[in-house]
Amino acid sequence: MSKGLLIVLSGPSGVGKGTVCSALRKRLPGLVYSVSATTRSPRSGEQHGVNYFFKSQEEFRDMIANDQLLEYAQYVENFYGTPRDFVEQTIEAGNDIILEIEVQGALKVKQTFPDGVFIFLTPPSLKELKDRIVGRGTETESVIHDRLSIAEEEIALMRHYDYAVVNDEVDRACMRIESIIVAEHCRIAK
Amino acid sequence: MSKGLLIVLSGPSGVGKGTVCSALRKRLPGLVYSVSATTRSPRSGEQHGVNYFFKSQEEFRDMIANDQLLEYAQYVENFYGTPRDFVEQTIEAGNDIILEIEVQGALKVKQTFPDGVFIFLTPPSLKELKDRIVGRGTETESVIHDRLSIAEEEIALMRHYDYAVVNDEVDRACMRIESIIVAEHCRIAK
Repeated sequence: MSKGLLIVLSGPSGVGKGTVCSALRKRLPGLVYSVSATTRSPRSGEQHGVNYFFKSQEEFRDMIANDQLLEYAQYVENFYGTPRDFVEQTIEAGNDIILEIEVQGALKVKQTFPDGVFIFLTPPSLKELKDRIVGRGTETESVIHDRLSIAEEEIALMRHYDYAVVNDEVDRACMRIESIIVAEHCRIAK
Repeated sequence: MSKGLLIVLSGPSGVGKGTVCSALRKRLPGLVYSVSATTRSPRSGEQHGVNYFFKSQEEFRDMIANDQLLEYAQYVENFYGTPRDFVEQTIEAGNDIILEIEVQGALKVKQTFPDGVFIFLTPPSLKELKDRIVGRGTETESVIHDRLSIAEEEIALMRHYDYAVVNDEVDRACMRIESIIVAEHCRIAK
């Protein structure tokens, strides 16, 4: 039996990774979703093992020490990471799995899985990305400026990815990603 | 403006390249079809510049001498080849072009266009291919045996291609090829 695909969906903050990933999961119910581990507290309605694996700081540090995470990052005081076992077991069982993660984390995953399918979701333009970040309406000028600089740096890392998918419309972006998945299943291993 | 894709559809004799290519052209009217040059005589209904560019032996030898063919081959006493200019002009203009050619010819095209998209159409099984070859009902046991040996040799060349598409059903094969085209348009150049 052939292995499943490891599909990494990434892209700059604000590009709409979460929205596209949710829509894709509805369209492809057989696609397995990699659930992240985090030390932050569950928000209302969030379920352990569905939205996140909720871990204590100590449990998370143990996972890092035991190389049980494909990648992890710290935001403010909380850790977020991708548990290795579940990803490996899923693809070994012949099922495709999708990871929706940040740009830097994706590049770490690539070190372990160079044969993964690395998809970079892009805004139609940088202006569009700015509009989306500003559009949230909750940030100061200075925060917006910082976010845009980070987004520009992240876009510069696109060259390390296999595919660039423009998120002009969620359905169109999903259709392109579905095509990439079909194509990758036809790809002849080199 | 970005260049168009050079898509090469090949596969063993009897696999159904012609049928799949015709169906694909109906589904994708914007896809340009590379018309071959040949020295054989037009059959009833065949049009110059549509089905083939009909050439004299002398004209064809001149095209070979002037490097105007991406690949060519001789079957019995007739030559068949792919005119270079039309292919180059089409992709330079930003349009995708498809070449439906034999396995050996495809590998010659790859020497000129290593970035082309090389798709190998496969039978669901070798038995299926045998059934298709036998099913034509017009060949002797010995001719069938020779064809199958050639098909096996051709299938061994599949590893030089980018994608393997199973021709289990024409519509499904077309859908896979369409996905490959969409995916290749998203591919980040390395």
